[in-house]
Amino acid sequence: MTAALDDLRSVFAELTSLHGWAPLQTPRSLLLALTGRVGAVASLVQWDAETGPDAVTPELRDELADCLVYLVALSDTLGLNVVDDAVTRIRGAVETSRA
Amino acid sequence: MTAALDDLRSVFAELTSLHGWAPLQTPRSLLLALTGRVGAVASLVQWDAETGPDAVTPELRDELADCLVYLVALSDTLGLNVVDDAVTRIRGAVETSRA
Amino acid sequence: MTAALDDLRSVFAELTSLHGWAPLQTPRSLLLALTGRVGAVASLVQWDAETGPDAVTPELRDELADCLVYLVALSDTLGLNVVDDAVTRIRGAVETSRA
Amino acid sequence: MTAALDDLRSVFAELTSLHGWAPLQTPRSLLLALTGRVGAVASLVQWDAETGPDAVTPELRDELADCLVYLVALSDTLGLNVVDDAVTRIRGAVETSRA
Repeated sequence: MTAALDDLRSVFAELTSLHGWAPLQTPRSLLLALTGRVGAVASLVQWDAETGPDAVTPELRDELADCLVYLVALSDTLGLNVVDDAVTRIRGAVETSRA
Repeated sequence: MTAALDDLRSVFAELTSLHGWAPLQTPRSLLLALTGRVGAVASLVQWDAETGPDAVTPELRDELADCLVYLVALSDTLGLNVVDDAVTRIRGAVETSRA
Repeated sequence: MTAALDDLRSVFAELTSLHGWAPLQTPRSLLLALTGRVGAVASLVQWDAETGPDAVTPELRDELADCLVYLVALSDTLGLNVVDDAVTRIRGAVETSRA
Repeated sequence: MTAALDDLRSVFAELTSLHGWAPLQTPRSLLLALTGRVGAVASLVQWDAETGPDAVTPELRDELADCLVYLVALSDTLGLNVVDDAVTRIRGAVETSRA
């Protein structure tokens, strides 16, 4: 599979609709959810050596996936196109570095 | 513009190469960078009302964009396809909800 | 100076009162503020080597201090005694380890 | 019980010694541990109403206690007196507000 973010948006909208979760998904709540998943990633690598982690566990993969889910949902809720914004931002940094 | 994540990967690789940053971009360092940007988002909405933020400032847009940059870089560094993982994960949740 | 947490509570109450900030200091808002300061700490050490940071800057000191301010305020708001809770928790872990 | 932070330091040192954890407790690792616990707190209140949480569960109490454990350990490791720093910082803000 090579999914695009729109596939993620589509299936997340389906899950949200099935459970009636839309009213819960305010920006601040989605941000707390993102914070929670980033924290879970941190807890999985907190005692690793600086070269770690040695292996990517399913739990680590799942938590990073959840980070993306909430980051995209949060950005969408705010009316942003986070991928465009990120490309624009990094492209600007490249141009500044070259100038 | 409708950029895809591969455009982001490409321009981020260019920036990394220009500065020779690759040795710095370990999983733990990228995770701390992600934590930093999520924290910056939090600081921008921390005193907002429940329905906030009232407006999406350029700073909020930029911080969310940076979250995506570091999340994708972290996932890539670990050899993950975070979009596929996220779609698989949410699709599984949809199927479980329907069963 | 050797201040105790009650000194911090007292002076923070004074600052809160001076500005009329009490209505803003809900648990979720204080948690987002804590997230913001933890993120600021992360951003200060994100590219450091394993043994870093090499030096403790005033900014790092200030951000850690702010983490404590918000953590204590959050715990107090919830009616917790976070120091007692932490001692109880770690003492329990010691006893379990020895059993 | 009314414990002081020095009680926490003492019992945490005992736990660390029992397990031989000292080499693991670098600033960056302690910061990731703190990030993990803050994230756990966030995940416990992420879908709450803005007036929430309605009740303080043992899990929420424990996670906040762990936040304090790691914040104090991190500050101590860096040679800081985080309570003094916090009092100084907030006292300064009070004086600035009054000036």
